[in-house]
Amino acid sequence: MTQHLKRYLPILSWGRTYDRQKFNGDLVAAVIVTIMLIPQSLAYALLAGLPPEAGLYASIAPIILYTIFGTSRALAVGPVAVVSLMTAAALGNIAEQGTMGYAAAALLLAGLSGVMLLAMGLLRLGFIANFLSHPVIAGFILASGLIIAASQLKHILGIDAEGHNLLDLASSLIAHLPETNLVTAIIGALATAFLFWVRKGLKPALLRLGVSEGGANVISKAGPVLVVVLTTLAVWALGLADQGVKIVGAVPQSLPPLTLPDFSLDLVGQLLLPAFLISIIGFVESISVAQTLAAKKRERIDPDQELIGLGAANVAASVTGGFPVTGGFSRSVVNFDAGAETPAAGAYTAIGLAIAAVALTPLIYFLPKATLAATIIVAVLSLVDFSILKRSWQYSKADFAAVLATILLTLFVSVEAGVSAGVTLSILLHLYKSSRPHIAEVGLVPGTEHFRNILRHEVETDPRVVTLRVDESLYFANARFLEDSIQNRVAADPDIRHVILQCSAINEIDLSALESLEAINNRLDEMNVKLHLSEVKGPVMDRLQRSHFLDELTGRVFLTQFEAAQVARESCNDTQAR
Amino acid sequence: MTQHLKRYLPILSWGRTYDRQKFNGDLVAAVIVTIMLIPQSLAYALLAGLPPEAGLYASIAPIILYTIFGTSRALAVGPVAVVSLMTAAALGNIAEQGTMGYAAAALLLAGLSGVMLLAMGLLRLGFIANFLSHPVIAGFILASGLIIAASQLKHILGIDAEGHNLLDLASSLIAHLPETNLVTAIIGALATAFLFWVRKGLKPALLRLGVSEGGANVISKAGPVLVVVLTTLAVWALGLADQGVKIVGAVPQSLPPLTLPDFSLDLVGQLLLPAFLISIIGFVESISVAQTLAAKKRERIDPDQELIGLGAANVAASVTGGFPVTGGFSRSVVNFDAGAETPAAGAYTAIGLAIAAVALTPLIYFLPKATLAATIIVAVLSLVDFSILKRSWQYSKADFAAVLATILLTLFVSVEAGVSAGVTLSILLHLYKSSRPHIAEVGLVPGTEHFRNILRHEVETDPRVVTLRVDESLYFANARFLEDSIQNRVAADPDIRHVILQCSAINEIDLSALESLEAINNRLDEMNVKLHLSEVKGPVMDRLQRSHFLDELTGRVFLTQFEAAQVARESCNDTQAR
Repeated sequence: MTQHLKRYLPILSWGRTYDRQKFNGDLVAAVIVTIMLIPQSLAYALLAGLPPEAGLYASIAPIILYTIFGTSRALAVGPVAVVSLMTAAALGNIAEQGTMGYAAAALLLAGLSGVMLLAMGLLRLGFIANFLSHPVIAGFILASGLIIAASQLKHILGIDAEGHNLLDLASSLIAHLPETNLVTAIIGALATAFLFWVRKGLKPALLRLGVSEGGANVISKAGPVLVVVLTTLAVWALGLADQGVKIVGAVPQSLPPLTLPDFSLDLVGQLLLPAFLISIIGFVESISVAQTLAAKKRERIDPDQELIGLGAANVAASVTGGFPVTGGFSRSVVNFDAGAETPAAGAYTAIGLAIAAVALTPLIYFLPKATLAATIIVAVLSLVDFSILKRSWQYSKADFAAVLATILLTLFVSVEAGVSAGVTLSILLHLYKSSRPHIAEVGLVPGTEHFRNILRHEVETDPRVVTLRVDESLYFANARFLEDSIQNRVAADPDIRHVILQCSAINEIDLSALESLEAINNRLDEMNVKLHLSEVKGPVMDRLQRSHFLDELTGRVFLTQFEAAQVARESCNDTQAR
Repeated sequence: MTQHLKRYLPILSWGRTYDRQKFNGDLVAAVIVTIMLIPQSLAYALLAGLPPEAGLYASIAPIILYTIFGTSRALAVGPVAVVSLMTAAALGNIAEQGTMGYAAAALLLAGLSGVMLLAMGLLRLGFIANFLSHPVIAGFILASGLIIAASQLKHILGIDAEGHNLLDLASSLIAHLPETNLVTAIIGALATAFLFWVRKGLKPALLRLGVSEGGANVISKAGPVLVVVLTTLAVWALGLADQGVKIVGAVPQSLPPLTLPDFSLDLVGQLLLPAFLISIIGFVESISVAQTLAAKKRERIDPDQELIGLGAANVAASVTGGFPVTGGFSRSVVNFDAGAETPAAGAYTAIGLAIAAVALTPLIYFLPKATLAATIIVAVLSLVDFSILKRSWQYSKADFAAVLATILLTLFVSVEAGVSAGVTLSILLHLYKSSRPHIAEVGLVPGTEHFRNILRHEVETDPRVVTLRVDESLYFANARFLEDSIQNRVAADPDIRHVILQCSAINEIDLSALESLEAINNRLDEMNVKLHLSEVKGPVMDRLQRSHFLDELTGRVFLTQFEAAQVARESCNDTQAR
């Protein structure tokens, strides 16, 4: 019972050894992460099309729930860029930004995603996420980064623009360009330039000034806070809001409210696919961060339990005025680097953010939206990494095709189309590759018992005995290819008396392939040719013995290819001698 | 050029050696097949919901086109049961049976299917058909047979009934049962009983009477013709049509008319998926018959050219008043057994059917529909073979699941749902299986250089060196599983200093798996563990060399596992000695 509880409540394991030293480490990390998260949370709410307080709310309860159920010690859960973009894309088809319906749909989206993640965790269905291949993820994140950056340009320029793909966004931006608010554009441009400098130039400058590596890291993460403070003061002091600079305005001064998602069946139907994609992409992003950080301390991550942790976090987001969340890369790394020892650091961060929600919200009344947009642009452009195109092109054209399809469809159609097409294409290309496996005709390397490809090596063969080695498991997609290959090889050459199938690379034979082998056996029999198998793996043999194939096989099953070739050749000689 | 022409026009190859002896063989076969095809063509037109002459038309031009473009020497192309059922199911959603719109849609369906088959042949996309696994085909044919038989009961009883799945059909039949026409029911029952006896009892009886095996085969195939003649005479002589027995009635006395399919975009959209499924299923049925017959004469079948042959046949059907066609099993076997030597036999059959269409149609005016229904029922019930359920259950639960899903959805939802679900499920189950590959920890068999599973054999291991053998190619679906497996194994055991991945069963490493290997390498490095590879296959190694992975690898790549284990152990000893 305790064992069972411990599996589902990892807090019971690390909580028992919690001490003063760990508390100190966690507290320092929590303070740093809190400072970093305040502007980030506000910005991602803006990106998701929600009021700024939703970003704070989405960072409080979810963190606490993940602390209880998650297995990673350093993962920091909350709104992240890609998921916020997917949220905006999903809700954009359903309601107008700024309406009650939009916020209610965001709650439902988080709730659905949470329930899906919980279900996948409890039913141990985490493998579903495996079908999102690395090229698809890389292509998707690259394209999302570009779309996010483009979508924030309207805040930088102080204009209206809409669209969830690059074409729509660009044409909308161009149409509204004449309405650009000059003061906003100046604030936006300065904030963006400063943040880029913070990212690239501040750390080296601090190091030159003698600040320690760790200190420089932490200070440069505080750059966004500085921009927030400076631009807010500027807008307030110079009365820029009256000159058309859009500001955050009044934010309710409260703890996260209790909310109930709108469970209309119609809405649920519309949000099922987006919620599923958000769940899967959020999970994949989160678990790779968790695995990377865990390896640094030789710790284990339980993927199924991670699903439960993220699911609980999203359900929490949906009942406390938030929107979909997941484990974020940059905040988790900061948390880890700042010395977080246990998930309790997350709980302290939540407390810090709760204090901010209650006490600091009046201070951000004059915060310009352009500043938040600058924060987002600088953060996401670091995700835009075109090297995946070159790497995949060099390594494998199939992977390149999947990357390219994902990028183009995400950019020019929609995020959902991009991910779906990428996943479908990777699966089809994988099946296509394994549907035309490499089949080598092999011969004996003289003086050894080894058999090698006759096209690559000098080997001995017998015109009456053909040995084929299939370098792939046999299953429905390549069963007919095998039939065709063998029939074509044998029909073309009337000397052949024996066909040996060397099975050393065959890890599985499914029912389709079994029936194809039966058909091959019968057809070879019609041509007066015997079929033999060699080097069949144990599990494959176990399974073959459950069928009638071995009874019907005209030839034999040999442990080694060497023996098979010898016996076949001797049998030919006997026949000729008679 | 000639070579090129010969590839696309196989008639140029066999036509050059055509002589008197081959002509005789072809002619005899053609006469027998023609007699068999007359009732069959009429019956399948009834099944497809089309007027009887459509069945004859669909058997004339398509055969001639296949003769020119096909590669099988014995395949007989025309309407077949399963494709006719699929035609009825596809058109039932679009138009009322008996209307002009229905017949026009049938032409379009054949035309679309023909174009798809031609395109797949020219683009060499025949592998698409491979995704239809044997269990799915078997389940689909079983379920189709049941639905076809059920759909013909209305003709046997002389009532109206509708529906394209078993539930709809059954409830419709029951509702109309009180309207049963007694005379029709008697004719139907007698015809069915007689045909079953012909199938099971006639051949043994003939053999007992001293008729040769071949003769008995041919005579028992003529059973349907006898029933057609007898019941037609009975209806005419006794004036049963006046008592409510439904008859075929007036059939136009003509050669196939020239027709043009209705190419409305709306209709094309609705028929795309059915046309695709009909193409694939027709192709799979046809090519397995062709391969089986070709093997008996050690001949080659070119699958891509078969697609072209079937595509041309379907285009021909669509412009001559027919409906979708493919190579049929029973007629091809009869053709082969009767001594067909070349595809010319098909052309002679077409001439025979053309004569029938012009000269014999008045004779079938009084042919009762119940007789045709009986022909269909007896023919399709031989397709209903429940043994696939037992075989798949014994051999593999995944295959069983695919069979069962296909059968249930075909029976109770629709033929399209059945095939689609079956294909999707087989693909997902295949991916699922390969997403959790068998990973064995191996050790040295004492006194040898072989490494075997530590759970199955008495082997030597070193606590500081772990060797894992993955029995599957590495690709996106199992990349994360590999990461998890290795991290869990190593994190649990602080003694480990070296991890060796034995790659003897790995036929491919895609980009996702490569990046997972890079992550594993980095994470193991964080834990101060080295990663080595052993027994990497040539093509896999070629590809790895196109990436940076081998430069970053903390350990080495060994030709043999034995060497890898030795070097790793020595390196541990060196470290301890220091």
